Amino acid sequence: MRTSLAERLGIDAPIFAFSHCRDVVVEASKAGAIGVLGCVGFTPEELEVQLDWIDARIGDKPYGIDVVMPEKDPWAEEQDLNRLHEKLKSMIPPETIAYAKKILADNGVPEMPEGAQHEGDYLIRSTAATARRHVEIALKHPKVRLVANALGAPPADVTRLIKDNGRVLAGLCGEVSQGKKHADAGVDIIIAQGTEGGGHTGEIGSMVLWPEVVEAVAPIPVLAAGGVGSGAQIAAALMLGAQGVWTGSLWLTTIESDLTEHQRELLLAARSRDTTRSKSLTGKPCRMLKNEWTKAWEAPDAPKTLPLPLQDIVAAEATGRARAYPDKARAVTINPVGQIVGRLNELERTRDVVYRLIEEYYAATERFKPLMSWE
Amino acid sequence: MRTSLAERLGIDAPIFAFSHCRDVVVEASKAGAIGVLGCVGFTPEELEVQLDWIDARIGDKPYGIDVVMPEKDPWAEEQDLNRLHEKLKSMIPPETIAYAKKILADNGVPEMPEGAQHEGDYLIRSTAATARRHVEIALKHPKVRLVANALGAPPADVTRLIKDNGRVLAGLCGEVSQGKKHADAGVDIIIAQGTEGGGHTGEIGSMVLWPEVVEAVAPIPVLAAGGVGSGAQIAAALMLGAQGVWTGSLWLTTIESDLTEHQRELLLAARSRDTTRSKSLTGKPCRMLKNEWTKAWEAPDAPKTLPLPLQDIVAAEATGRARAYPDKARAVTINPVGQIVGRLNELERTRDVVYRLIEEYYAATERFKPLMSWE
Repeated sequence: MRTSLAERLGIDAPIFAFSHCRDVVVEASKAGAIGVLGCVGFTPEELEVQLDWIDARIGDKPYGIDVVMPEKDPWAEEQDLNRLHEKLKSMIPPETIAYAKKILADNGVPEMPEGAQHEGDYLIRSTAATARRHVEIALKHPKVRLVANALGAPPADVTRLIKDNGRVLAGLCGEVSQGKKHADAGVDIIIAQGTEGGGHTGEIGSMVLWPEVVEAVAPIPVLAAGGVGSGAQIAAALMLGAQGVWTGSLWLTTIESDLTEHQRELLLAARSRDTTRSKSLTGKPCRMLKNEWTKAWEAPDAPKTLPLPLQDIVAAEATGRARAYPDKARAVTINPVGQIVGRLNELERTRDVVYRLIEEYYAATERFKPLMSWE
Repeated sequence: MRTSLAERLGIDAPIFAFSHCRDVVVEASKAGAIGVLGCVGFTPEELEVQLDWIDARIGDKPYGIDVVMPEKDPWAEEQDLNRLHEKLKSMIPPETIAYAKKILADNGVPEMPEGAQHEGDYLIRSTAATARRHVEIALKHPKVRLVANALGAPPADVTRLIKDNGRVLAGLCGEVSQGKKHADAGVDIIIAQGTEGGGHTGEIGSMVLWPEVVEAVAPIPVLAAGGVGSGAQIAAALMLGAQGVWTGSLWLTTIESDLTEHQRELLLAARSRDTTRSKSLTGKPCRMLKNEWTKAWEAPDAPKTLPLPLQDIVAAEATGRARAYPDKARAVTINPVGQIVGRLNELERTRDVVYRLIEEYYAATERFKPLMSWE
């Protein structure tokens, strides 16, 4: 499975392990894959701490970061995050916030404790201002070999900055035209994510999307994302021309992952049919476990979800309270995950997941051998 | 690519070519794949003619038929199809029919010509009464090696009848629990269709669904469906443990296919993102090209689509008029097809499609070889 991209990055197996948890990033890279830290939940100051922590533990292995940076951000002018937050909040129709509060009340989740501020945490998700600082900090850390952008091509000056610093730039896409656009903008690796994937995801299935993007952006390497949870699926991805796989859900049920006990239970029990693409978290379709929160936003009397980044602030009602009251918020806790969740049935160590994927890969190719000749 | 299922059926390549067009069935089987005739559009009398026609041309090659037979049909008691039709029509809310008529009027499609009856054609789609007769007729044709049921396991007596006659029974599923149920009911081959597929289709992507079903029903063989349009995709399916592939969309753009000129044009031009899962044709989610008809049923003021088989009768407004006025109905003609439509960009002969798939399969496995060893 040593593709040319794996050679180029100096990794044993072209398995890109996306996680918001630094422990997973370190363990994945040390096991021969490459960990990629999702930055969206961190303030710039927090990210600095995270990367220092990783650098101190990862040895000479490379790793990556993943940011959420729109190519054009209508809020880019406003550099003061608090002022921006107030401005955005004033744009939210009161009935939309009221509806979010009603969902939580209907499900027995208490109001936030007096004085607790939770919305601010989530505002930072989707603005270029924060993501730019994330990138600047990452570039001061030489072991960060890869910068991935969940929204594809970053603004041109950021693209230049990343490449001038000798880092590899990757960008996600959910359809061919996006992939081509990213390639034209100078992205080094296109990540093609099928509808199976967790989090923000499009409508086109991996089986159709992967080879379509591979052909459209050749010779730029493509990572296959959406639905990868076994070594046989990695072999299928490489058979379809991908140079590696981009995985996320898989690491949520590792021992190192920092989910709540309740979230882990839900993920381990869920079947592949238990997810839905819902706009209720960010305003863009995002795959997550179906629950009372997602159902309520699909009810006939539900207000329309708001565009990014306003719906983030609305959803903070749920994400904030779920953190404050994890037990009471069980039915409405937002759990982004892909359809591969049906295969996640036990806790594993991150390194064991990497080793398992590699073993399964070679077992699948061994089984396939007799089907390779015409006779 | 000679899987054990291919050996068992006596075919060169385990490519199951589903088509409503008898010419495609004959050509696919003669080229080394196996053609499967979709029966749903035929009266029992018409089917007899179709199968005789195929038998006279297919030589010693096997082929299959595909029926749409619910395991339990609430209308099974009513054997008189005309009486049943009248009964069902009386259950349709007038505003739903009025809405369908409005969509057509808004798009400039004339009313049906005086005296033309079109709904009857479509009533027969989804009743067990018709499907039973389809099966009885097929069993009188010895070259029909395979009977597939789009709804999975047929009623128990039909399952027995098919197997006692030495035919192979296949059933479609869109999720693991359905696949297991079909296997328990005695189905010989499980067809696992991912959300990418055309026509009735579930939500789970092929990359996740195929290996999940393979593992759940082993050692019963699985055909991979949904998103297969190239030899590399067949190789990926076999890598994931499938014993063959079930393809449908692929044959719509063959020279032998009997679509209208207009439908062909639309299919050749469409991209993978141009389909949607819509309940507007049968009441169950069915993947088809997005157009003014599918859009209208998603409008906020649209009436709810009706359950199967009532929506069939409503949709006959569109299907019937599209046949009567193919040019004027361009914007509302219903075109079931999978996401693989993005790859269907030129007319090909059926046999050339089969040969191309086989060549691409071996080319893909050849390219994959260097990735099979650890070094």
